[in-house]
Amino acid sequence: MPLFGALEAGGTKMVCAVGNAQGKILDRVSIPTRTPEETMPGLLNYFRGKDLAAIGIGCFGPIDLDRRSPGYGTIMSSPKLSWRNFAILRRFQEELDLPVGIDTDVNAAALGEAVWGCTREVSNSIYITVGTGVGLGVIINGRPYHGMIHPEGGHIFMDRRPDDPMVRGVCPYHPNCLEGLASGPAIERRWGRKAEELADCTAVWEMEAYYMAQAICSYIMMISPERIILGGGVMHQEQMLPLVRREVHRQLRGYIQGKGLDDLDNYIVPVSLGDNQGVMGAVKLAMDAYAENGGAL
Amino acid sequence: MPLFGALEAGGTKMVCAVGNAQGKILDRVSIPTRTPEETMPGLLNYFRGKDLAAIGIGCFGPIDLDRRSPGYGTIMSSPKLSWRNFAILRRFQEELDLPVGIDTDVNAAALGEAVWGCTREVSNSIYITVGTGVGLGVIINGRPYHGMIHPEGGHIFMDRRPDDPMVRGVCPYHPNCLEGLASGPAIERRWGRKAEELADCTAVWEMEAYYMAQAICSYIMMISPERIILGGGVMHQEQMLPLVRREVHRQLRGYIQGKGLDDLDNYIVPVSLGDNQGVMGAVKLAMDAYAENGGAL
Repeated sequence: MPLFGALEAGGTKMVCAVGNAQGKILDRVSIPTRTPEETMPGLLNYFRGKDLAAIGIGCFGPIDLDRRSPGYGTIMSSPKLSWRNFAILRRFQEELDLPVGIDTDVNAAALGEAVWGCTREVSNSIYITVGTGVGLGVIINGRPYHGMIHPEGGHIFMDRRPDDPMVRGVCPYHPNCLEGLASGPAIERRWGRKAEELADCTAVWEMEAYYMAQAICSYIMMISPERIILGGGVMHQEQMLPLVRREVHRQLRGYIQGKGLDDLDNYIVPVSLGDNQGVMGAVKLAMDAYAENGGAL
Repeated sequence: MPLFGALEAGGTKMVCAVGNAQGKILDRVSIPTRTPEETMPGLLNYFRGKDLAAIGIGCFGPIDLDRRSPGYGTIMSSPKLSWRNFAILRRFQEELDLPVGIDTDVNAAALGEAVWGCTREVSNSIYITVGTGVGLGVIINGRPYHGMIHPEGGHIFMDRRPDDPMVRGVCPYHPNCLEGLASGPAIERRWGRKAEELADCTAVWEMEAYYMAQAICSYIMMISPERIILGGGVMHQEQMLPLVRREVHRQLRGYIQGKGLDDLDNYIVPVSLGDNQGVMGAVKLAMDAYAENGGAL
């Protein structure tokens, strides 16, 4: 039975794993993210000698995902400067001589859930992660969606809550985008303490749920997903999900009805794969790369 | 050669047309939209006796477009009250005994452009119409996109311009959605005169371009289209397109680069089918319904 390598490439850590075609994770390690020169040797060493059929990468973006482009699989205008213009896909292909699949970290997580998790029964779903940043993964017709580049849904523009004490969002690009107003660093800037130290402060989570719900309403108006998954560190606050659902209901104001919107508990859901959705999605990307190269699953 | 009926069902008028499989419109009439009881006989009479192979409908929404639903082809929570819950698809099928295809008016227009117009060369595009309302048609992988219901992109939430003299948008559902701030009625409410009487007033169109550009930036972040078409009455103001492009460039602030964004003149474009995109898209819906029923094109 073929084994697949999976890399979940994040801004603070790189999770390397080995999984099988059932999505079972058989081994995993975590390596801190430094510069490509410092970090890549450890990643390559992990995957070497493991007799893998292919590797899948879910990577922070923006990434060039246009297969017709000479820069396919290259990290683009990332705020992580040392990784900007780094051809991560090609480096893995050349060093390991294996088929390699790549997508954004959030598309990989959305894919993991769509293949093995809570969006198995639907064709169109989105995965939102709220942590250091805010990311949006989009599955359309069962496949990760890209379009021209790929969704960067953390940067949609927001209607600020009038009583928000923070004057400007923390995103260096946009004064009022979702990530700038609702990411972990935004919470810390607004309230002067880290999100995890504010668990008991109702105002913090009502403000956060207001912005997340507003974004979700806009996603519903744009993408009309059949199910919405919320993940990431900020969503580990258990009070968030009920608050977000209540706010989505309030802010939609009945404009769209029926289907999932009649049962928000089953429409807006937490991750179902115990935060393994990212590496499991990367395993699926590896499986697809293997199959495209003639491998039999 | 088979002939196809096309209906562009709008809130103020119904455009009935006959076209061929090349998208050529051979005949068209316009009928005012009143109640279904008053309006339907005229529509049915138009299509009767024309020896049509099928009919396609592009209809104002929201519409039930779930083929597994018993209400497939029924108008849902429309503000046009007499049409609410009207099973427009079934009525045409039963009265004319023909295959009938249906989609939203904006998806039909997006499809017309995708098959015969300015988005022929791309797989993923959006069509935005700004008039009495703001509508969004979405083409993904060359096909009209629906998801759970269908996009209602006129109702995404907006960051208000601080100097906007209008206190609340005109949408009865949402205080700060795109349609409420940027539709024709919003312009009239804000400035006290109809949009067409304000052509020379720079402030009007700069405000309008600000909101349209903001929405377009959010659409780019969510759907990452390969090309964006702007249509509808408000876009007949020739000064709008350059203003919108300039504002999109300014508001994105370089966060996403490359591809279409390096050449906004070819990325954000006007309609190419002389406002026939809606009926031509409806012809394509008819062709698809015909083919699904075993017809040969």
